[in-house]
Amino acid sequence: MSARKFTITVPCTSSNIGPGFDVVGLSLSLYLTLKVTVDPSGSNTSPTLAYTGLGAEEAPLDAYKNLTTRTALYVLRSNGHTAFPVGVSIDVHNEVPFGRGLGSSGAAVVAGLLLGNELGQLGLGKDRLLDHALMIERHPDNVTAALMGGFVGSYLLELSPAEEERRDVPLSEVIPEYPPNASFDWGTNPPSPPKNIGHYIRFGWAPEIKVIAIIPDFQVSTASARSVLPETYSKKDLIFNLQRLAVLTTALTRSPPDEFLIYQAMQDKVHQPYRKNLIPGLNDVLASVTPKTHPGLLGICLSGAGPTILALATGGVEKIAEDVIRTFREKGGIERCDAKFLKVTEEGAQVTHE
Amino acid sequence: MSARKFTITVPCTSSNIGPGFDVVGLSLSLYLTLKVTVDPSGSNTSPTLAYTGLGAEEAPLDAYKNLTTRTALYVLRSNGHTAFPVGVSIDVHNEVPFGRGLGSSGAAVVAGLLLGNELGQLGLGKDRLLDHALMIERHPDNVTAALMGGFVGSYLLELSPAEEERRDVPLSEVIPEYPPNASFDWGTNPPSPPKNIGHYIRFGWAPEIKVIAIIPDFQVSTASARSVLPETYSKKDLIFNLQRLAVLTTALTRSPPDEFLIYQAMQDKVHQPYRKNLIPGLNDVLASVTPKTHPGLLGICLSGAGPTILALATGGVEKIAEDVIRTFREKGGIERCDAKFLKVTEEGAQVTHE
Repeated sequence: MSARKFTITVPCTSSNIGPGFDVVGLSLSLYLTLKVTVDPSGSNTSPTLAYTGLGAEEAPLDAYKNLTTRTALYVLRSNGHTAFPVGVSIDVHNEVPFGRGLGSSGAAVVAGLLLGNELGQLGLGKDRLLDHALMIERHPDNVTAALMGGFVGSYLLELSPAEEERRDVPLSEVIPEYPPNASFDWGTNPPSPPKNIGHYIRFGWAPEIKVIAIIPDFQVSTASARSVLPETYSKKDLIFNLQRLAVLTTALTRSPPDEFLIYQAMQDKVHQPYRKNLIPGLNDVLASVTPKTHPGLLGICLSGAGPTILALATGGVEKIAEDVIRTFREKGGIERCDAKFLKVTEEGAQVTHE
Repeated sequence: MSARKFTITVPCTSSNIGPGFDVVGLSLSLYLTLKVTVDPSGSNTSPTLAYTGLGAEEAPLDAYKNLTTRTALYVLRSNGHTAFPVGVSIDVHNEVPFGRGLGSSGAAVVAGLLLGNELGQLGLGKDRLLDHALMIERHPDNVTAALMGGFVGSYLLELSPAEEERRDVPLSEVIPEYPPNASFDWGTNPPSPPKNIGHYIRFGWAPEIKVIAIIPDFQVSTASARSVLPETYSKKDLIFNLQRLAVLTTALTRSPPDEFLIYQAMQDKVHQPYRKNLIPGLNDVLASVTPKTHPGLLGICLSGAGPTILALATGGVEKIAEDVIRTFREKGGIERCDAKFLKVTEEGAQVTHE
């Protein structure tokens, strides 16, 4: 039997977009790519992993610890397979910076969904794969966007107590918990295949809206970025975000984009105010780069949990990037930032067979 | 000089639609109608009011106490007029039940906006009138829908401290506070014309979606319906509503409507759970009328603060209405309910001249 070869491509994602905390995600043109070979004549029972690009020094190469292969194993074991097939080797190349708020973990999970589906030749559609994703990662924004592409919003259904219990096996909020003793037996006794865990919708995206990501050279862990958030919010702040999110998702579909409407609709009271201490200079950036100072700017916010800044604009993108970088340097003491001018990727995660 | 005559028509509105507390509004086909005559040869300095239809026994006929004429006076005084013109007489006919969650107060305010604009021949456009509305009524959902028509979402901008102070003159959360001594001098020293108080966007509405309002025969005051709400919410409940609202506004535009997506997207944790004690039988209604029991049902929720139930459906509307009415009677002890099959009104508030 000859070797099978396929390539998995997963886009990076920006979530929240101001008021849409844990709700909306935008799929963007930096990619996590897996080149996979399955050689039935091979002898390795555990996939061989090689990793180049960003995060190569951090990503575990043990298939029972690597998030992508763990996710693949979850998909396989939830759908009747007991183990990885033999002879799997995976070359990972990653363009998505780790811990910057561009969905690197979500991309790794989504790559694992497609990997499991292909390794087991399960033939699961994306809607079914999304259910698996949402059992692993209970924040649907990044994984939905990475899997489906485009600009999306999603909700989780509430799990029954029985489902809550089941989802602790084998993966529950695993990011970034890797049991030190994970091995062949890890993740046995998997749950039945998850169904109806969440729903999503795809919004439009006005073609005039360009995307700039300004990426400071330090990491913010999702866990610490979540730990600074309060457990309760005032009714006033809740209404503030509900009002803006409702307007924003439709406003970003309309041509020409209405800067007046969008800039205010991208304001947030739920996460950004609490994250300013984690990201020195954030408030200065948000206050000094506005549609008045930067014609063409539509809105500016944290990408995910940060520290990346997401700016949406119809023009003037270079000046926006320069001034965000300068403000981070002068007010936040952040010496290095990388600006990326990105496209909204319509396709989402893909598999191509050789 | 001959008399001027014109007619103002304002639709009723349903707000919240599940998760969109204080955000979204839907304009529907029950109307508040004002037939206005301005006869410069008349001698009355205060408009003469006559009122027929629903609420005729409750609505004040003193122009300094009636919400519509008070609003008109606010618009006039904010835009250079010191008083009503002489010789105004207004025949009001109202189809919008009071205190049922169908936007009767919002309709009265919006009628007043158009009345003031016409009486003063101010020529203000609807966007400018919305700014006036949002200074009077700080919950934008109903007034925006009544003024603009269709299915809309809106946000309030935050007022500066100076603006907060100014908006106390002459009208501030006036509903339903009528100073007992209001007379000709009432509302003098008005603020400058409000600008940039809020923004709105109009969503689509799938043509297949029919609207049923089931109106129990008792009133819930907005004030008491607000007083039962908590001041703070858990992050979990906040995210629950944010996720559903983001999906809902777009899901209701798509043809054919996706019942699976919409029904869950209309769930709410912000206001309905707290209002069940004000509306006996509410939980039984919501639990017993579902897409499984009633094919064609898309979603069911409180209209505004209730007690009216809003159901959206592609079919089976009579059975939905019957079963809501029966459940209210059997489980809530509510003897009388009125079912209305309504259209989404595209036009919003209108003035026609004879």
